[in-house]
Amino acid sequence: MADFDLTEHPHRRYNPLTGEWLLVSPHRSRRPWQGQQEATDEAPRPAHDPTCYLCPGNVRANGEVNPNYSGTFVFDNDFAALLPDTPVGEVNIGGLLRAEAESGVGRVICFSPRHDLTLPEMSPEAIRGVVDVWTQQFRELGARPDINYVQIFENKGQVMGCSNPHPHGQIWAQRTVPGEPAQETQQQQAYFQQHGRSLLTDYLALELEQQQRVVLANAHWVTVVPYWAVWPFETLVLPRRHVQDLTQLTDEEKDALADMVRQLTIRYDNLFQTSFPYSAGLHQRPTDGQQHAAWHLHLHFYPPLLRSATVRKFMVGYELLGNAQRDITPEAAAQRLRELPDVHYKSARQ
Amino acid sequence: MADFDLTEHPHRRYNPLTGEWLLVSPHRSRRPWQGQQEATDEAPRPAHDPTCYLCPGNVRANGEVNPNYSGTFVFDNDFAALLPDTPVGEVNIGGLLRAEAESGVGRVICFSPRHDLTLPEMSPEAIRGVVDVWTQQFRELGARPDINYVQIFENKGQVMGCSNPHPHGQIWAQRTVPGEPAQETQQQQAYFQQHGRSLLTDYLALELEQQQRVVLANAHWVTVVPYWAVWPFETLVLPRRHVQDLTQLTDEEKDALADMVRQLTIRYDNLFQTSFPYSAGLHQRPTDGQQHAAWHLHLHFYPPLLRSATVRKFMVGYELLGNAQRDITPEAAAQRLRELPDVHYKSARQ
Ligand SMILES: O=P(O)(O)O[C@H]1O[C@H](CO)[C@@H](O)[C@H](O)[C@H]1O
Ligand SMILES: O=P(O)(O)O[C@H]1O[C@H](CO)[C@@H](O)[C@H](O)[C@H]1O
Repeated sequence: MADFDLTEHPHRRYNPLTGEWLLVSPHRSRRPWQGQQEATDEAPRPAHDPTCYLCPGNVRANGEVNPNYSGTFVFDNDFAALLPDTPVGEVNIGGLLRAEAESGVGRVICFSPRHDLTLPEMSPEAIRGVVDVWTQQFRELGARPDINYVQIFENKGQVMGCSNPHPHGQIWAQRTVPGEPAQETQQQQAYFQQHGRSLLTDYLALELEQQQRVVLANAHWVTVVPYWAVWPFETLVLPRRHVQDLTQLTDEEKDALADMVRQLTIRYDNLFQTSFPYSAGLHQRPTDGQQHAAWHLHLHFYPPLLRSATVRKFMVGYELLGNAQRDITPEAAAQRLRELPDVHYKSARQ
Repeated sequence: MADFDLTEHPHRRYNPLTGEWLLVSPHRSRRPWQGQQEATDEAPRPAHDPTCYLCPGNVRANGEVNPNYSGTFVFDNDFAALLPDTPVGEVNIGGLLRAEAESGVGRVICFSPRHDLTLPEMSPEAIRGVVDVWTQQFRELGARPDINYVQIFENKGQVMGCSNPHPHGQIWAQRTVPGEPAQETQQQQAYFQQHGRSLLTDYLALELEQQQRVVLANAHWVTVVPYWAVWPFETLVLPRRHVQDLTQLTDEEKDALADMVRQLTIRYDNLFQTSFPYSAGLHQRPTDGQQHAAWHLHLHFYPPLLRSATVRKFMVGYELLGNAQRDITPEAAAQRLRELPDVHYKSARQ
């Protein structure tokens, strides 16, 4: 029998950030695909769309008029999933029917006044403006006594449930710490207590040593396809310095983060020569007043495409009932991303 | 301030089977939807499709010819994610890069020779045949020393990653217990140790008392929208009797399970008058030789549609980075399902 080989044989990998395992089936990428084809978001868009509720000067669902903003623009979500004035209350019947009131805030962040752009098509300075607004929002919301966790994220592309192509992200900030960051808090704390260094400091050192999963690196940030990536081209963006949240970053580190987001999203678009859909977001320390020394800020990118602009990975039957599963190895995905040109395919065409 | 009201106010609910929380935003169902529209699987199909690799008598990818089966038909998946002959091996670098070889078996179960049917359109006797094949497969695979967990499931509809409309399900059986059933094992054991009854026995008693989330009930099975349902019209099918796996069911209980699957999937199709997509599957005790007295067999149905045949719920940014979230209450979903006719809309049309 051949030796165990991660590039060939089915195996499980461990995610130390969540404590969960993932099934990897490298050989399975050879199976044919006769299933659903995704629509692509390729129709050219105008710089300003009079029917878009995010463009400057337009009227929103609640009758408010957007200002004529020139950089970013933040407003309270007209259809927020979280509301600040929820009455307190709970249900607990035998530990089996349990509910608790939840309060919070939902906001929308327009990244640019230009309806026709996306992050990889924006200038480094404009993306730096987005990093700044993330930082301000985290500071402002995190300081509120009723907000103990701030989730900043972007859903990009129809296939990721985004209903408006105007470049924008969201913030959902709330009283309790949601499941994912709660798991990451626990795992990072346990590691920090045992080793005296953050989990992601040690992980990053291993990745820089091995280089196999590194996609991009600059003076302050490194992007890897994590060893435990679930989505085909999932990445993890890590600051070289162990910080808990955006407010601790220097100006230079923020510029470098903007540059990293730009470089990464350009490569994503170049992979299948399409506006690459993903859900992405920041994980930062909870804002519950505790110290969270173990927390190491990072960004996750979860893109669904697998083989082309129209063939995605489905997280369905086995994945929902059993376990997360992937078909190509993280190492193969990293290599493909690394080898892509650093000029956006649309500007290269001109 | 108004009293806390589960039908009005954002809240979190606890899933005692997994130990995770869910965010519920009842007011949010009012938001407009301008995003992706799903394709429906409504094109009429022939009873036999010469190009289908699941129809009787046709040739599969590996050159094998399907028998002229008349009931169900099981074969080893030609593109299985799990393989029986994986060499043993592991990686562990600093507890941060961890991998383990995984072995197992992937099988396909054709539910019917008829290419044009789905479970809700099959006769009770034919569905009973499916229950029997599930039972045989669980018995056979579970008895193997190299298989410690057997996951039986169905992905139905293109939107759930199904690439062939011929009615079929799958089995992924493997050496280790995947994440979801491992969590359920832990939670059920803890409950059983504390109370001396299975978690789902007590939960079912509460649901039968409250009736609010009960969708269907027969002599041996009850279907509820669980208190902690994530997907809009998610259901949980429970045997009234505390059994660990299918092999313990009586003939009468198996007939009643077939009837329940039929009744439930008819209502699902009737909800939006479409062939209702879902991922569904059985959760049974691990087959690792341990006793698992706490385990209580059940079926999960995870359907993605939210508002119509073409508008689904997306599990994206907040859901991936933060927490599962839903927009309508489980009680409202149960009421809608309960009130649907028990005759399939296609046969009612004739
Ligand atoms: O095995 P199939 O039907 O080709 O594939 C489908 O189900 C699998 C198990 O849930 C998933 O991993 C795939 O993403 C999905 O497309
Ligand atoms: O808030 P939006 O953009 O309308 O909605 C989108 O993002 C939300 C947060 O991830 C999800 O709950 C929705 O399912 C998705 O369609």
